[in-house]
Amino acid sequence: MSDSPGAALRDLRERKPLIHQITNYVVMNETANVTLAVGALPVMAHAVEEVEELASVAGALVLNIGTLSHHWVDAMLLAGSAANGAGVPVVLDPVGVGATTLRSETAKRILAEVDVAIVRGNAAEVATLAGLEAEIRGVEAMGAEAGGPTIARTAANQLGVVASVTGPVDHVSDGTRTLAVANGDPLLATITGSGCMSTAITGCFAAVRADALVDAAAFALAAFGVAAEDAARGAEGPGTFHARLYDALYALTPESLDEHANIDDA
Amino acid sequence: MSDSPGAALRDLRERKPLIHQITNYVVMNETANVTLAVGALPVMAHAVEEVEELASVAGALVLNIGTLSHHWVDAMLLAGSAANGAGVPVVLDPVGVGATTLRSETAKRILAEVDVAIVRGNAAEVATLAGLEAEIRGVEAMGAEAGGPTIARTAANQLGVVASVTGPVDHVSDGTRTLAVANGDPLLATITGSGCMSTAITGCFAAVRADALVDAAAFALAAFGVAAEDAARGAEGPGTFHARLYDALYALTPESLDEHANIDDA
Amino acid sequence: MSDSPGAALRDLRERKPLIHQITNYVVMNETANVTLAVGALPVMAHAVEEVEELASVAGALVLNIGTLSHHWVDAMLLAGSAANGAGVPVVLDPVGVGATTLRSETAKRILAEVDVAIVRGNAAEVATLAGLEAEIRGVEAMGAEAGGPTIARTAANQLGVVASVTGPVDHVSDGTRTLAVANGDPLLATITGSGCMSTAITGCFAAVRADALVDAAAFALAAFGVAAEDAARGAEGPGTFHARLYDALYALTPESLDEHANIDDA
Repeated sequence: MSDSPGAALRDLRERKPLIHQITNYVVMNETANVTLAVGALPVMAHAVEEVEELASVAGALVLNIGTLSHHWVDAMLLAGSAANGAGVPVVLDPVGVGATTLRSETAKRILAEVDVAIVRGNAAEVATLAGLEAEIRGVEAMGAEAGGPTIARTAANQLGVVASVTGPVDHVSDGTRTLAVANGDPLLATITGSGCMSTAITGCFAAVRADALVDAAAFALAAFGVAAEDAARGAEGPGTFHARLYDALYALTPESLDEHANIDDA
Repeated sequence: MSDSPGAALRDLRERKPLIHQITNYVVMNETANVTLAVGALPVMAHAVEEVEELASVAGALVLNIGTLSHHWVDAMLLAGSAANGAGVPVVLDPVGVGATTLRSETAKRILAEVDVAIVRGNAAEVATLAGLEAEIRGVEAMGAEAGGPTIARTAANQLGVVASVTGPVDHVSDGTRTLAVANGDPLLATITGSGCMSTAITGCFAAVRADALVDAAAFALAAFGVAAEDAARGAEGPGTFHARLYDALYALTPESLDEHANIDDA
Repeated sequence: MSDSPGAALRDLRERKPLIHQITNYVVMNETANVTLAVGALPVMAHAVEEVEELASVAGALVLNIGTLSHHWVDAMLLAGSAANGAGVPVVLDPVGVGATTLRSETAKRILAEVDVAIVRGNAAEVATLAGLEAEIRGVEAMGAEAGGPTIARTAANQLGVVASVTGPVDHVSDGTRTLAVANGDPLLATITGSGCMSTAITGCFAAVRADALVDAAAFALAAFGVAAEDAARGAEGPGTFHARLYDALYALTPESLDEHANIDDA
């Protein structure tokens, strides 16, 4: 029997990896809380004086470029190098890349200076990073499900990372192997930071599957998606869904995750 | 039949305007979430390198001076000028103005250097901005309802803005036309950032009623107030009210808003 | 009849003290909301230009060293001196002290330059501050309940503060008198910032019991713990517990607090 999302979740809860996150102001509380709810330990720190100490002892490092400013870029590069030196996988969330020059240049600089393991973004963000602007327009025409596998595969090859492209159906690829994850709920799009949360959980699974990053990324999206499905049952809207999302992540068992995870070759 | 809050809400949901917010750390997640819940798209960004790009393509710009520091003031002024140049309405929330010299000077500087469309604050904040310190003491003696129309009207004339003064009853004025909005719930005062949320929603409505800013401000407060009334039913205290507030904003329909909005000439 | 947590809560709600908090980005919204829910007024501000004005008129000043950066350290020192000058009690939360050099040095610097009234941390943090590294390993072996009183007593003597050590059972000491507080719920450990929240509430009670700081610290932990017990009933996991925690703090009465507070000599 091969690996499964439930087996990885079990490992995560046993090892409780430390997930160092340099993320945006809007979602810090939320990504720390999903990290705890899924069973890992968050540490949020951005000072250039301390990020290397923390990143090098973490199970994974998550870099998220929302609400950037230049001190934070310095911290991300320092932390990324320290993580690389210590063999700690780095997950990048290129929030809003393409929307401003600062974000595009920062994302490119991180990809150039840091060995990034997984990039987690939406179709537009990942396509922008991979220089697939035409593809974005195609995606808008075809629907994300149609363009997702191509964007994931191309971005993985172009950037030398595992690309994790979230949407109504998610696609994860290392350039050769591509998986589709069909879990989640439309309510995720009604709360800010749901993408950032999925990136934090990707960091959690990367910490326990550093040698199988396509699986790590797909397992993480399945776990988050199954929890979202559970949370949506009984939610009355975005606010109660949001509260119930932490309940559902915390209540998720390896067995229920394996039963409901919907991961297929794409 | 003239305009109505429900008609504006319908437009908002169709156009999904981008609302650029430079706001305080305490409420970023909350104001982004009310923006999404009401039907617009939040973008939170404060770096001087990117605020002009974002503000100039936004439907509205919201400036909020809570948790200030000097880099943020620079960003607010740059974003404000860019918004002005692009015809994007600017909404200012002078959080805590009068409490410290930094806040008072920053609010005055923004008003001097940026063409602000709407100022949304409580009676003490707006009165302070308009130099009505005596009026504040009067308000405390009379109750905000009594002083609100005078403060709103005077501030509008003094500052050359639409003044939106929130309290048990809200008052909105451009100096000649003054409206009273009697929606809301006392639970709003038990959660931090409810004023900041009302400012964010004011930005959302300003984006679709840039040519009718008194209406925009009143419609926004009616929408937020009606949602608060809905959220309070069934809430067990500040925490469940807070979660239900997003549910209620998301569930608000043009019809229910028009039915329950309580807007009158003041 | 001597003082009681309920009597202090009653005073808090009558006086509504202003609690100035310079705290970390992750928990700002949450600590502001618990401050409001318990009955005090939060003000969150970190700019060096305004912290002295605010700290000197506050009922208490809370310094929290999570997500540090050097501007914030400057602000904490300025605010701390201003608070000391005005006789305002200062509460320090040494988040993550020992994890990085920056945090350890900052905590030590604050303790050296500011007259801190109460230090609120977990056993590892307080033991680290007091130079009791061996004690931490002992705590891990014995369980925090066993080591807590020693750590609290020793830290109080070493640092010249009231030490408030939270864990499954909390211990508060001024070096001679030591109290144990046995309230709370395991769900507190599943949400980020529950420690920071308890520090904010400690600030609230210190504002109304500045002359009885051991009582203030114990009353605060009892209030937070009783609210957590109330919130846990009916919670379905971390997210609904978190929302209900604000409900429970807000609903807490002096009578129910006195009935359920579990404070004993240690």
